[in-house]
Amino acid sequence: MKEYRGYIFDMDGVLYRGSKPVPGAAETIERLKKKGRKLVFVSNNSTLSREDFAEKIREMGLPIEEGELLPATHATARYLAERYAESGVYVLGALGLVKELLLAGVRLTQQPAKAEVLVTGSDPDISYRKLSNATELLLRGCPWISTNADKLYPSESGMLPGTGAVVGALQYITGREPVVIGKPSAPIMEQALEMLGLPREECLMVGDIIESDVLAGRRVGVDTALVLTGVTRREDVEASPVKPDYVIESIAELEV
Amino acid sequence: MKEYRGYIFDMDGVLYRGSKPVPGAAETIERLKKKGRKLVFVSNNSTLSREDFAEKIREMGLPIEEGELLPATHATARYLAERYAESGVYVLGALGLVKELLLAGVRLTQQPAKAEVLVTGSDPDISYRKLSNATELLLRGCPWISTNADKLYPSESGMLPGTGAVVGALQYITGREPVVIGKPSAPIMEQALEMLGLPREECLMVGDIIESDVLAGRRVGVDTALVLTGVTRREDVEASPVKPDYVIESIAELEV
Repeated sequence: MKEYRGYIFDMDGVLYRGSKPVPGAAETIERLKKKGRKLVFVSNNSTLSREDFAEKIREMGLPIEEGELLPATHATARYLAERYAESGVYVLGALGLVKELLLAGVRLTQQPAKAEVLVTGSDPDISYRKLSNATELLLRGCPWISTNADKLYPSESGMLPGTGAVVGALQYITGREPVVIGKPSAPIMEQALEMLGLPREECLMVGDIIESDVLAGRRVGVDTALVLTGVTRREDVEASPVKPDYVIESIAELEV
Repeated sequence: MKEYRGYIFDMDGVLYRGSKPVPGAAETIERLKKKGRKLVFVSNNSTLSREDFAEKIREMGLPIEEGELLPATHATARYLAERYAESGVYVLGALGLVKELLLAGVRLTQQPAKAEVLVTGSDPDISYRKLSNATELLLRGCPWISTNADKLYPSESGMLPGTGAVVGALQYITGREPVVIGKPSAPIMEQALEMLGLPREECLMVGDIIESDVLAGRRVGVDTALVLTGVTRREDVEASPVKPDYVIESIAELEV
């Protein structure tokens, strides 16, 4: 394995599964940090703010600082703050997303008539009224930014609808398509690279899903390593037309 | 215009707009009935039961009996009762749909683990929990029946999300597709023809939307008449690749 100076880690399936850390994850992160490597941890999570996320990570005993975390909520807020600082923004999403947007100084409004931009994420309190408001904005031609477009995500009680439920609903009825911030789209990865501040050829993306993590790495021109501690098995890699640069059993096998 | 013995009427945009009857609609229906013609009135409405619908129609002074009405709620209940009489059915839909299913003797359950069939309609009380339950059924491979797949519908406060919001959400995240009962699909039209009990060549479908009503008529092999009292204008007809057999200003111009 080539030597890298910067690492972008996907989290779920790489550092932990559910709330159980992957054996050796904490030690590998420590070792990378001691060697002076720069690290960013990305996630498509659209319901937790960066602060919420840091707490979850701390509880698992992983040596990661809040400033190294880049959940899709935070990445979306940054994107909005950079491009739509003066616009009224309507959010269909969870509290964690609202918190990030407010922290970034985005001007939120609950009145669709006053809104100029739509932001969507997974929403445990999704309602017909919220969908109607979002539809009104989209039919008026407002820009639409989505934290991610993930179809499903695994939970202890089985697969649950992801942000894709909101994206699919609005896309189907309005014919519009969102700008997607999360993996495999580029925006979250571009932000991660900016946080690292290193040339792309010196960075490695480490993830457990080919269609999300490996594609995301490819899209921004960094090398990719796939770990087998998440949803992908070795036979899936062999069957896939997209090949990561490295396939390793777990994060603990990263040569550092 | 050829003479027909049976008529299938779409309702909104043909007999009324909002809650205002189209001038001459009541008289035309009277005249057809006096001549012994058979009539069925279809609608993609997925929130009102047939009884709810009859009340709305009576309030507008239209001479239509409850037994001549075929809203998508009722058509869906009939479809389920015929094919899934012994199955546990989970409904993501409005009270009017639930009422029709219960009247038809369909066995409803709120426990997704006990459900074997999913029925969807527009739901003013849509929730994340209901979407999760529906997702569970679809990932298990259960049959999926939808009242309709309409994208939007016009209201006094603008365009609102139709049943398509539910269909689009579930389709996007699960990759499944529903059996659609309402127009332009065949099931509601087949039921209408069954209610008329006449050969197809003696029946005329009258509607105001090419992609819904005219296509629905085509699909089951009946002649079609487009009225211009709804959403379609004469220039839309000229631009459309699908041509109805007749284009008339309003239902009052039907030669009877």
